[in-house]
Amino acid sequence: MERLSDMGEDSLVRRLIGRLKNSRRGDLVLGAGDDCAVIDIGLEDDYQLLKTDSLVEGVHYREDTPADKVGWKAVARVISDFAAMGGRAGHLLVTIAMPGEKEVHYVEELYRGMLECAEAYDAIICGGETSSVPEGAAAVISVAGTGWVKKNQYVSRSGGEVGDRIFVTGRLGGSIRGKHLDFLPRIEEAKWLVEGFELTAMMDLSDGLARDLPRLAEASECGYQLDKENIPRNEGCDLSSAMGDGEDYELLFTIAPSSADQLRHLWADKFPDLELTDVGALVEVSQSNEMGKGGWQHFDR
Amino acid sequence: MERLSDMGEDSLVRRLIGRLKNSRRGDLVLGAGDDCAVIDIGLEDDYQLLKTDSLVEGVHYREDTPADKVGWKAVARVISDFAAMGGRAGHLLVTIAMPGEKEVHYVEELYRGMLECAEAYDAIICGGETSSVPEGAAAVISVAGTGWVKKNQYVSRSGGEVGDRIFVTGRLGGSIRGKHLDFLPRIEEAKWLVEGFELTAMMDLSDGLARDLPRLAEASECGYQLDKENIPRNEGCDLSSAMGDGEDYELLFTIAPSSADQLRHLWADKFPDLELTDVGALVEVSQSNEMGKGGWQHFDR
Repeated sequence: MERLSDMGEDSLVRRLIGRLKNSRRGDLVLGAGDDCAVIDIGLEDDYQLLKTDSLVEGVHYREDTPADKVGWKAVARVISDFAAMGGRAGHLLVTIAMPGEKEVHYVEELYRGMLECAEAYDAIICGGETSSVPEGAAAVISVAGTGWVKKNQYVSRSGGEVGDRIFVTGRLGGSIRGKHLDFLPRIEEAKWLVEGFELTAMMDLSDGLARDLPRLAEASECGYQLDKENIPRNEGCDLSSAMGDGEDYELLFTIAPSSADQLRHLWADKFPDLELTDVGALVEVSQSNEMGKGGWQHFDR
Repeated sequence: MERLSDMGEDSLVRRLIGRLKNSRRGDLVLGAGDDCAVIDIGLEDDYQLLKTDSLVEGVHYREDTPADKVGWKAVARVISDFAAMGGRAGHLLVTIAMPGEKEVHYVEELYRGMLECAEAYDAIICGGETSSVPEGAAAVISVAGTGWVKKNQYVSRSGGEVGDRIFVTGRLGGSIRGKHLDFLPRIEEAKWLVEGFELTAMMDLSDGLARDLPRLAEASECGYQLDKENIPRNEGCDLSSAMGDGEDYELLFTIAPSSADQLRHLWADKFPDLELTDVGALVEVSQSNEMGKGGWQHFDR
């Protein structure tokens, strides 16, 4: 009997996505397998983005993590996925499944953190649901929402081409020391990027470069060559930590090499306090680096 | 220290909704506190509906419930909420949070049931997320989605007026014997109702008439008088079971008394196999029935 832990998250998702293919419809621009689903709902300029993301106590945060920070993180993760498409947030729904022994104050603090993040990024929390779970079971907080992206600006994971340069924003690794709870989704940076440049592919780094870059490359039907010494590391992080810790919530994107120099210069003027680093290139699949194992994967043994 | 179990679901939701009021925006037609949130996204004829709903193992289904039926139920509950607004389903996202020891086959069966229900009601499952939960923790399945309703046909819980007749579709009670796993959301019936009649308020019966009618009445700032002997019961159900078992997923709605006779006659022609019953009237709050305790409430002791 095959169990989820035998399979790993990516294989499971791949198998489930296969089942969804049958139920496509004309208004579905991009279905499962990217940061968001993309829908053409009949507006002239914009596509609608759909996203859901959950936090599980004991997996994504600890029981003693301050509740307002858990709330910020729950909303920020969804907003980061809208940024990853070149978009912005719209309306959010919140599901809270918790055991009855949880304190009311905890839930109020959780909501305070969620509202703070939503307001910071012009998102509206417009409802949701509360449910009990059996005593002792893990709490699950799920945020689902709509976002928007200009039709001529949306960026998927799958448009990368051989020769494109690979960039990351910020520095990687060590998020568990605090950043994973109060990170700032790269909405403004992504907006500036898609307004000024033709990015070929983009995603946000949630599971670590070692796990996420292969996903982007695979979606683009490319391999990759990483300049490992160039990977921007947070203080105290070695290469393996920078590539594998996960929860960086930085942007990973690709762009034609002819635009790379101009991008670097304009970026430095616009965002002097946030690094942008060229970490390598997309290449033919046969030329790809072997990245080795790393990064976070659910159900992995 | 106040805990969720001291408070009950309705009080908790009321308190959380209070916090959301600050973050309203012009495009939010109807926020938290109804079956769906209603958004004006700039289309001429339609509002967008947003809904999220979750099933928790050990609360909403048992570990040994066939997975395809759990999947059907997870999707059908959301579609029933679109029906409750007079609307229809659009795109759905599925979140599955499960321990790694769960069998892959179980998840595939779950998906099969979800897809079956989605296809039956013209909904598209376009993505979602999988997450692990700690070993032994309860699985949580959450379905979030968009729906649509004609602007001139949407029905909330809050438009009921003193004197309106109260109707329910179908028969109530005993859902736990099986119906809660394979019920048919009343999409077609709701569509026929809102196209032909001016309903004043509507919701779907998920927690039982004893719990849900007071919610509708409160939202409409009315009381209610129930003709208890008229309440349509499923076989083997006494009044308390019909009113309190919950998970009926029938429509509960109100309509001006002047339209009630015509509605009854036309309904009988259109849906000869599904009962429609006049169970009472909205009245002044001071004239309201005392319903007593009953129905399902999360966190209740």
